[in-house]
Formats: sequence, structure tokens, C-alpha cells
Amino acid sequence: MTLCRVDGQPAASLGLADRGLAYGDGLFETMRVEQGRIALLEQHLQRLQDGCRRLLIPFERLQVQDEVTAFATELQQGVCKLILTRGDGQRGYGLPQPAMPRRILQGSPLPQWPLAHAQQGVRLFPCRTRLAIQPLLAGLKHLNRLEQVMARAEWQDDSYAEGMMLDTSGRIIEGVFSNIFFVRDGVLLTPELSGSGVAGIMRGQVLQLAGRLGLVVQVGDLYPDELDGMSEVFTCNSLYGIWPVLGYASHCWTAGPLTRRLQSLINRQDS
Amino acid sequence: MTLCRVDGQPAASLGLADRGLAYGDGLFETMRVEQGRIALLEQHLQRLQDGCRRLLIPFERLQVQDEVTAFATELQQGVCKLILTRGDGQRGYGLPQPAMPRRILQGSPLPQWPLAHAQQGVRLFPCRTRLAIQPLLAGLKHLNRLEQVMARAEWQDDSYAEGMMLDTSGRIIEGVFSNIFFVRDGVLLTPELSGSGVAGIMRGQVLQLAGRLGLVVQVGDLYPDELDGMSEVFTCNSLYGIWPVLGYASHCWTAGPLTRRLQSLINRQDS
Repeated sequence: MTLCRVDGQPAASLGLADRGLAYGDGLFETMRVEQGRIALLEQHLQRLQDGCRRLLIPFERLQVQDEVTAFATELQQGVCKLILTRGDGQRGYGLPQPAMPRRILQGSPLPQWPLAHAQQGVRLFPCRTRLAIQPLLAGLKHLNRLEQVMARAEWQDDSYAEGMMLDTSGRIIEGVFSNIFFVRDGVLLTPELSGSGVAGIMRGQVLQLAGRLGLVVQVGDLYPDELDGMSEVFTCNSLYGIWPVLGYASHCWTAGPLTRRLQSLINRQDS
Repeated sequence: MTLCRVDGQPAASLGLADRGLAYGDGLFETMRVEQGRIALLEQHLQRLQDGCRRLLIPFERLQVQDEVTAFATELQQGVCKLILTRGDGQRGYGLPQPAMPRRILQGSPLPQWPLAHAQQGVRLFPCRTRLAIQPLLAGLKHLNRLEQVMARAEWQDDSYAEGMMLDTSGRIIEGVFSNIFFVRDGVLLTPELSGSGVAGIMRGQVLQLAGRLGLVVQVGDLYPDELDGMSEVFTCNSLYGIWPVLGYASHCWTAGPLTRRLQSLINRQDS
């Protein structure tokens, strides 16, 4: 880590009483920094605020915004990861009264994914690890991420850039670190995330953009046996934008026109 | 925190790159220390070893045992909490190669629960928070504990000493920080934990003791509509032993003979 802040101050470590460590009791955001500014800052702050409301963590939006903005100015370029925990606790699950939420900022260079991922497309590893169905936490980017850790540990073969995860009912939900979209008969489809998954910021951008373009969009249940009917597939996240998907298990696709159109518009928005 | 160690050395803080903070990527044990010794040390180490095997975390049992034993000697009396994380990681879910697991030891006084909890019994709060069904993580005492945090946040009324949690299918699973047992027609019953829940060390002790006493034991699915047929109910954990349960929702029980017998034997084993 090149640059770190804890509660607004330079620091490379965290007190052991923090509930982020004890229970994964917090949330995080992974944000792209370009020319000293956070891409999609408002959207990241809004998701964090929504997450804090659901987890009963007090959220000082202006304080967080100021710290993140100052951090981005200093980092200039790269990834700004913000972890917001419920702060220190005593032994036991009971909420600290009052909670003093802690902000942890870590800077790192932008991941060096091969250009081919965006230009040609990627293959998805078929993860055996299933996502549990937990409406209480679904959609949140919280710190309880053992499912993603175990899913990512399933493959070492670099020819898979991402994995695809189903939930325990067999529905398609998301990638390990991305969301996923499909095109069928001209309709843009993406899994509904009320039972599991992370409601990604780039997913929200794609949905919003699709609406502006007048595309027909369906957010609902999707199963692997529907994949044969899909003409295009792509993944997305805040750091890389959109990757066309070329393969998953025995299925093959090409990077299609709608994927390319959205990719081009998202890239233009970004810059 | 009075006494802390990180990787065997006195330390009150943790580097920000630790995956315990980033993803809850680790396990923990909460152990009772009496006269400088860890109660049920072998059982705690064995559970930790099993958990590490399932989460693909390298486990150096002798090293952990030495550190824990030295810590207990210094602490003399209280609670020794051991957090074992996968250690430092770079950005992203991929496992660090090699992983250098981190041991974090924190000492605290034994919780001051009212004596009446063990002597008379307790009421259980009916938690609305459900446990997700995730066989991959079921039984493990891992660091992804947001479900317990949210369940414990449901009540502030001290007249509830614990809460009872169901899974998303409506099965009775456990307390928020305890396991749970029932007696019906002389048979000792406890929920099966292959889908969710923590396989507690004291739960294991009770099951072993019941076997030695020749009791009929059933580990299986249990639903709230079976509660009317239960003659005794109790919770257990490593710190307090056994608490008789007197009430849950509209159900009432008294501290029964089997509960008292097991409680007395567990207390005698301990000392």
C-alpha cells in the first residue's frame, strides 16, 4: 500500500478492538481515481449511505466525502479503497453505544488487467462455490466476503479472467468481483439481487444508461439453462468498465453490438 | 483490552493489509482461562485446524498452541480470544501465495453475567434475523459474523439474556452466541449444523457427555412448532457452560432434571 489513512490521519495500522476485524462489521467501496478525482463519487457515497442505514451504522456523509476527496487529490491515479467499520467494540456482538465508525483509506495502482479483456473479451470460470440467500445483506458491499474468497480460490488458470457464481437455488447472480449482463432477443437482462450479490456501481450505471438509450431491460431470475438463448454476455465493475464474455462452460459468444455500444458509452462517460 | 499479542509479539494494532479486516478472511476461538490454563484447549485447537482445512488456510498447530499457552499463563484468568486470519494480501480476492496466517490474541475479563442466568435460567429473544444456508461455511467459527451482529441488535431489554435464531428455511439453529439443546420424551435434541450455525465446543462437550451417560441423542432438524413438546431447553457455550431456558415467545419451561444433571457435570469437568 502506497498511501493510507485511518480516520483522516496517516496510519498504516488499526487497533485490535475494531469490529471490522472481529466480525467483518462494516462496508467497503473500491473506487477508481483519475487525475485526482474519484469516478462516480456520488454513487459510491450513496451506496455506502444506504448500506450504513441497513446495518445501523451512523454515517457522516460530508466527513467521508471530504476525506475521500482529499485522498484522491493526493493519490492522483489508481484505486482508492474505503473501508467503513462500526469502529471499536468490547467483547460480544452487542452494538457499541455510541458507535464511532472508522474510515480506512488505502491507495493502490490500477490493476494491470490485459488490454485483451476489454478489447476481445474474457472466459468465465464456472465456480462451484454458491452464494447463500440472505436478503438482510443482499446487495450490500459488506466485509463478510468469505464466499468470494473461496470462489476465487477455485481457479489458478489465467485464461479465466473472472468466475460466474450461482446462488444456492441455482440462479445466476454475479461474477466474483463483477456484475453480469446478458442480451436475449434484443433485451438487456441482469440478475435481480434481493437474495444475494453486490449491487455494483457500474451495474447501476449500465442500467441507467440502458434506460436513457430506450433499451428494454429486465432485472429478474436467470438460470444457467437459459444461457443458450443469450446472444451477448458481459461483466462490469467500477475499475475496468465492461468486459465482453466469450465463454462459460460449454457456451461460446462473441463480443456483440450492444456490448460494444455500452462499453463505448461507459468509457466516454468515464473520461 | 488488557493483554494483546500479534504473531507472538506484544502489539495493540494490526497492519491494514490483513485479510481479516478486508474480507473477514479467518477464524476465531473464544476460550476460557482459569488458573493460567485454557479450558478445553485441545478441542479449540482441533476446531481451528478443521476450519483452516476447510478455508484452505495453512495451520501451524504447535506454533498456535505454544502462543496460546504462553498467553494463558500470563492472563491467568479471563477470556482468551484468538483470531487467526489468512494474513496480508494484495488487492483482490485471490489467495496470497504463500499465505502467512496471522495470530491475534486478546485477553479480557470473564463476562459478568448475572449468577441467576445459570442458577434460575434465562429468557430467549425471538430474533427476526435469519441465518442464511451456506454449507460451505456451516459449523465454522469464521469472521463473517454480520448475521450475529444484526440479530444481537434486535433487543436492548436486559431481561433477554440470549436470542434464538432460525435459518431462512425456518429451522431452529442456535443462539446468537450459544448453541441450544432440547429434551423431549427423555431424548436430548439439538439442531444439525450442516447448513448454518457454529459447532460450539461446549455443544461438542454436551454431546460427548450425553453419550457417556447413555442418553438417547438426536441431532436433526427442529422447528418452532415442535417447542410445545419440549420438556426442557438449555443453551451452552464455552464461557458460561449451561443456562436453562425458561421462556421463548409464548413458551415457558422450568429448569429440568436433565439440564441440571448436565450442568453439574459440565461444571465439575471444568474445575
